[in-house]
Amino acid sequence: MPHIVLLGTCDTKLAELLYLRSQILESGGPTCKVTFVDVGRTPSAHEHIDVRQDILAIEYAPESGAKDVASLPRGEVIRYMIACATKWLAEAYTKGLKDPDAAIHGCINAGGTGNTSLASAVMREVLPIGLPKLIVSTNASGDMGPIVGESDVTMMYSVCDIAGLNYLLRRILSNASGAIAGMAQAYERSLAASPQGVNLQQKKRVGLTMFGVTTSCVDKIRDHLESNYDIECFVFHCTGAGGRAMERLVSEGVLEAVLDITTTEICDQLCGGVMDAGPLRLEAPLKAGIPYIVSVGATDMVNFGPRSTVPERYQQRNLYEHNPTVTLMRTNAEECRAIGDFIVKKIKHCTKDAAQVQVVLPLGGVSMIATPGGPFHDAESDEALFSTIRAGLKGSKVLIVEDERTINDQGFAVDVAERLIHLMGLSRMGAPQRMQ
Amino acid sequence: MPHIVLLGTCDTKLAELLYLRSQILESGGPTCKVTFVDVGRTPSAHEHIDVRQDILAIEYAPESGAKDVASLPRGEVIRYMIACATKWLAEAYTKGLKDPDAAIHGCINAGGTGNTSLASAVMREVLPIGLPKLIVSTNASGDMGPIVGESDVTMMYSVCDIAGLNYLLRRILSNASGAIAGMAQAYERSLAASPQGVNLQQKKRVGLTMFGVTTSCVDKIRDHLESNYDIECFVFHCTGAGGRAMERLVSEGVLEAVLDITTTEICDQLCGGVMDAGPLRLEAPLKAGIPYIVSVGATDMVNFGPRSTVPERYQQRNLYEHNPTVTLMRTNAEECRAIGDFIVKKIKHCTKDAAQVQVVLPLGGVSMIATPGGPFHDAESDEALFSTIRAGLKGSKVLIVEDERTINDQGFAVDVAERLIHLMGLSRMGAPQRMQ
Repeated sequence: MPHIVLLGTCDTKLAELLYLRSQILESGGPTCKVTFVDVGRTPSAHEHIDVRQDILAIEYAPESGAKDVASLPRGEVIRYMIACATKWLAEAYTKGLKDPDAAIHGCINAGGTGNTSLASAVMREVLPIGLPKLIVSTNASGDMGPIVGESDVTMMYSVCDIAGLNYLLRRILSNASGAIAGMAQAYERSLAASPQGVNLQQKKRVGLTMFGVTTSCVDKIRDHLESNYDIECFVFHCTGAGGRAMERLVSEGVLEAVLDITTTEICDQLCGGVMDAGPLRLEAPLKAGIPYIVSVGATDMVNFGPRSTVPERYQQRNLYEHNPTVTLMRTNAEECRAIGDFIVKKIKHCTKDAAQVQVVLPLGGVSMIATPGGPFHDAESDEALFSTIRAGLKGSKVLIVEDERTINDQGFAVDVAERLIHLMGLSRMGAPQRMQ
Repeated sequence: MPHIVLLGTCDTKLAELLYLRSQILESGGPTCKVTFVDVGRTPSAHEHIDVRQDILAIEYAPESGAKDVASLPRGEVIRYMIACATKWLAEAYTKGLKDPDAAIHGCINAGGTGNTSLASAVMREVLPIGLPKLIVSTNASGDMGPIVGESDVTMMYSVCDIAGLNYLLRRILSNASGAIAGMAQAYERSLAASPQGVNLQQKKRVGLTMFGVTTSCVDKIRDHLESNYDIECFVFHCTGAGGRAMERLVSEGVLEAVLDITTTEICDQLCGGVMDAGPLRLEAPLKAGIPYIVSVGATDMVNFGPRSTVPERYQQRNLYEHNPTVTLMRTNAEECRAIGDFIVKKIKHCTKDAAQVQVVLPLGGVSMIATPGGPFHDAESDEALFSTIRAGLKGSKVLIVEDERTINDQGFAVDVAERLIHLMGLSRMGAPQRMQ
């Protein structure tokens, strides 16, 4: 019995949403259920609307109090309805966790730019990664970074405007109905196969952060962990979204330990690069108190797009064109001190269990191109980073490990992996379990 | 019997692709069929691979001749395999049009950046809009403009790297299998309901191009056409992808007439704006010889993102901040001449049937903000545009209509709509059909 939540603005797109609803019911089969939630600006009346806009706007108003939605400016309407719909969906989702008959197996929306912002914010906030989410959008052939973020919202381009049920839009919405119904059924099957969700999984789940220039380190760690221990690795590319996804999966309880080899997103956060994971990087694993090893992979670089897009103020810096669409900038000593400071502050303020946290510094070089002879070799800047971390964490209970090797040294990789194993209290497969 | 094509690089991701294949077969039910095509760099051997990489690379080599794929640099490998896979898929798709037992109902791929580029290029090139396409990508939480383009490739973010079948990736791939199987089933149903595809549709299909500043014109036209004639309208936002989608749907035979009210994408093509539809804009409707009315809506503006992203060379120009993420630049007389030239050249070189083409110039103003008193009112630049078109098309058989009203004048909208009706040879609903 797949149960799908349909979010839509009924004041502007009722006919299209009703068509989508009918198609979902057809695709989902006789036991499929749709809960149709009106997130429009003004209330609409229709027998198929299950949660009316006025109920949402009043009974699910944010803490700050209910507002007269129709009188708000457009941007405010969206923010307000995000708050209301988030509150409603969180309640419905939580109810479904306790009562299988009310469980939610998918969430869908269709609309223009404003609609997409609204629905994606609600889905990202409430629904865990892995729970099917689909948005049909006039906007999907563009930059989806702010829309998808670190979540798995699937995006379908509507091609033409979602206004008027023409031949093409009917087909697109029909495809979307098949997609969400099929996803919801697959999700329901996977829940049934493992009713307690992740808890029944036997393998330990370890997150690893990677970049092109730290790949051989991360590949070696993954190989070592998966060959010798009952572990499955989750590798995240440090694209901004990748680091945030890793942190989110820690918060959701999916990841049980993290080897944060590559923390380059801090550079982009501080220097305005394109792979910025936001100001909260490192916080989730520290706050969770799980085994967590932090290194400084690729902190020699800030990422930009094509060379022409590198900001004016950086044009005279040491720039390296990785390919026509990726330009890297070498971080200087001042920036490296700031990066070190960022790491120190997060560890000092967010660490729940200092015994579970270690910082590993590969003194021989923090990336493939920062070793002697490489285009980003700069011992002075590296030392600014290392000494800031050393000084900042002096007297803390967090262990700092200094290793003369480079980050991609295969021995370094194995040793870091073994450090994590030790923190996790694991034994080799086949060997008796170590006391925990 | 949904039939789904699975494109994948088996040399690097065989285990993940085999898992995806098995999940699709489970989601699609007992009659579901998967054709698994290996688009990797080197051949892999597995009983479930239906089209081997070496067959693809040799028997479907491009006209320029077969190459030793493994010896090519990475970028070349992708280009070469795009050519081979495109040739194979075009053959398979065409075969399916003739033989229902071989029909294709969906296409899916999963992989990293290179994989996504490869698969999206093949799908965009071969498969019509409306035929289900899904890509699971490490890349989907980013700029999908170049990937989705004017097509309806649906994008699912893999969240973690597609390497190693961990708990999360299994769930994501399982969701993807449900999505493509469900879409393919919905598509198959919609084909069965209308076996000849678009040809059985009764209503005439008219494309309209729109921008925020020409919305009241386009809304009025749509209302007039749909209320009075057996017509369904397809509205396209001029986002670059939107204009290209309109042109593509003309080429695919979906649109039977076009009112190209808003040709602002030409400004972005010529001046480096963000809503560039490429250099081929206007060509498809002209070459198709269908009823086609071109106007100059929103040619007063080039689109950029936030003000800080407007190129240095334009910072002193007349800029208008529509909102924090959209900055408009007024086109000047020189640029307007170039825009006029673009329109003239396309009409001169691409028109198949001059009797079906008209150019309509709203002399009172080309957008909501270009009328007297508006921030982009500039009679001199407008006149540069109008006179270039007048002079350029002098002596051609294409009718130029000059109208003193503004583009958003409701009477102007109705008159333009009626011009198209006349070209299409339609009568009002209920009235006897006019002789064609």
